[in-house]
Amino acid sequence: MAAFRTHRRVEFRDTDAAGIVHFSAFFPMMEAAEHEMLRSLGIAVMPRPSDGSDPLTWPRISAQCDYRAAAYFEDILEIDVRVAKIGSTSVQYEFSFSRASLAIAQGRITAVCCRLTPTGLVKTPVPEEHRQLLQKHV
Amino acid sequence: MAAFRTHRRVEFRDTDAAGIVHFSAFFPMMEAAEHEMLRSLGIAVMPRPSDGSDPLTWPRISAQCDYRAAAYFEDILEIDVRVAKIGSTSVQYEFSFSRASLAIAQGRITAVCCRLTPTGLVKTPVPEEHRQLLQKHV
Amino acid sequence: MAAFRTHRRVEFRDTDAAGIVHFSAFFPMMEAAEHEMLRSLGIAVMPRPSDGSDPLTWPRISAQCDYRAAAYFEDILEIDVRVAKIGSTSVQYEFSFSRASLAIAQGRITAVCCRLTPTGLVKTPVPEEHRQLLQKHV
Amino acid sequence: MAAFRTHRRVEFRDTDAAGIVHFSAFFPMMEAAEHEMLRSLGIAVMPRPSDGSDPLTWPRISAQCDYRAAAYFEDILEIDVRVAKIGSTSVQYEFSFSRASLAIAQGRITAVCCRLTPTGLVKTPVPEEHRQLLQKHV
Repeated sequence: MAAFRTHRRVEFRDTDAAGIVHFSAFFPMMEAAEHEMLRSLGIAVMPRPSDGSDPLTWPRISAQCDYRAAAYFEDILEIDVRVAKIGSTSVQYEFSFSRASLAIAQGRITAVCCRLTPTGLVKTPVPEEHRQLLQKHV
Repeated sequence: MAAFRTHRRVEFRDTDAAGIVHFSAFFPMMEAAEHEMLRSLGIAVMPRPSDGSDPLTWPRISAQCDYRAAAYFEDILEIDVRVAKIGSTSVQYEFSFSRASLAIAQGRITAVCCRLTPTGLVKTPVPEEHRQLLQKHV
Repeated sequence: MAAFRTHRRVEFRDTDAAGIVHFSAFFPMMEAAEHEMLRSLGIAVMPRPSDGSDPLTWPRISAQCDYRAAAYFEDILEIDVRVAKIGSTSVQYEFSFSRASLAIAQGRITAVCCRLTPTGLVKTPVPEEHRQLLQKHV
Repeated sequence: MAAFRTHRRVEFRDTDAAGIVHFSAFFPMMEAAEHEMLRSLGIAVMPRPSDGSDPLTWPRISAQCDYRAAAYFEDILEIDVRVAKIGSTSVQYEFSFSRASLAIAQGRITAVCCRLTPTGLVKTPVPEEHRQLLQKHV
């Protein structure tokens, strides 16, 4: 099945004094691409249940990125998002960054489904409907 | 041999709307700890040779982080830095974040030694003196 | 004359533990909107002259923002950019952020035209063509 | 009365492709210096009342910075914080950044005292004890 594809232009704040995109800047880009994919599927990123129950949130338990080539200010990056694995309480996403077919970076994020309670985060199963919708980009 | 240990207080900008430190914020913290370790060893982080040759810089080819527990605004994080591997042109660092003995996150960064030339980055061997100094925290 | 209008969705990294967009996040948003306006006018943001002369860059000498209402994760912000003043070596921009007609923030940035020389930044007159093109959004 | 003085080393993530500290990076630095000053006075930055009432938070209604000279990677910046004005529900701070007596930047932030309620932020008077303690750096 197809990856979710989005694009993003590198902003000046993403760069560093070596003249390239700072390695840490890829992580918020991955998260934003993940959220864009979720919205495209009709999945609320931070659902606030109307019955007053706790909102869900997806803290990350793992994140990584391998860098293949430097990205620069104003580059338009193509980002492909795939759902690599759906566990009972977690989802793993894979991200490919490229610029005009040149591989720039390859990332992976594992997020855990949690209820945001007044006293902290509590792990909870991935909602069934959520699971079904994610199939599109497995 | 001993890890290099430093501390860092979580700032408000490091947090997100889930009330915890954003996962991406750990990456600049790792880099800053790495740089602090390098300075403690007398290694210039971005040496600008006095003979006019190209400055060295250390772009990252890989970065990852596993998150064990949430960190919060104003937490004082203890960060241990170890040199996991010294290759011919690269160095791998490992980072342990904890708060009062509670494991918060475990990270790894691999950096490649490059000359910053007018036309881009060019891989170059890790300077021998640099290699020797890093032994302290292998 | 008309402002340049763009839109931007608030990302999770823009938020903080108070649950709103962090005040500092508006500044990179202003700069990105400014750059988008420049590109729309055919003005290179960081021109690298083909004759080998120094690239131009626009360091900021002043930036400010007044906050009217909180912005939240996933908000789509409407951003209007106006050229408030064109000096001999500087340009002042004004930015209005709103969400569905509700005023969110009002910002101002003054940037100075500089050559990025090997030994540092050197102030230089705003190029005449640049000046002409900016008239569209004065 | 004396300003509160702190120091901060410029990190690589603070820089941009022009080789200097990005203008937006001064704002989180100001906030962190403000919070450090508050802690030095024994003022809780985000107090969570033990009686279960709403925590206080200080959203900013205005922030500005004038830039005098560029700051660079690894610079140690001296930051002086002064309380410029204490209003009924707001406090204004002034910040001076310098490096070895060279003025780098001058900033100002106005923060409003708010209760963080389940339905949003609600303005509330600056607590009297807080007001007294701030006198030290007026």
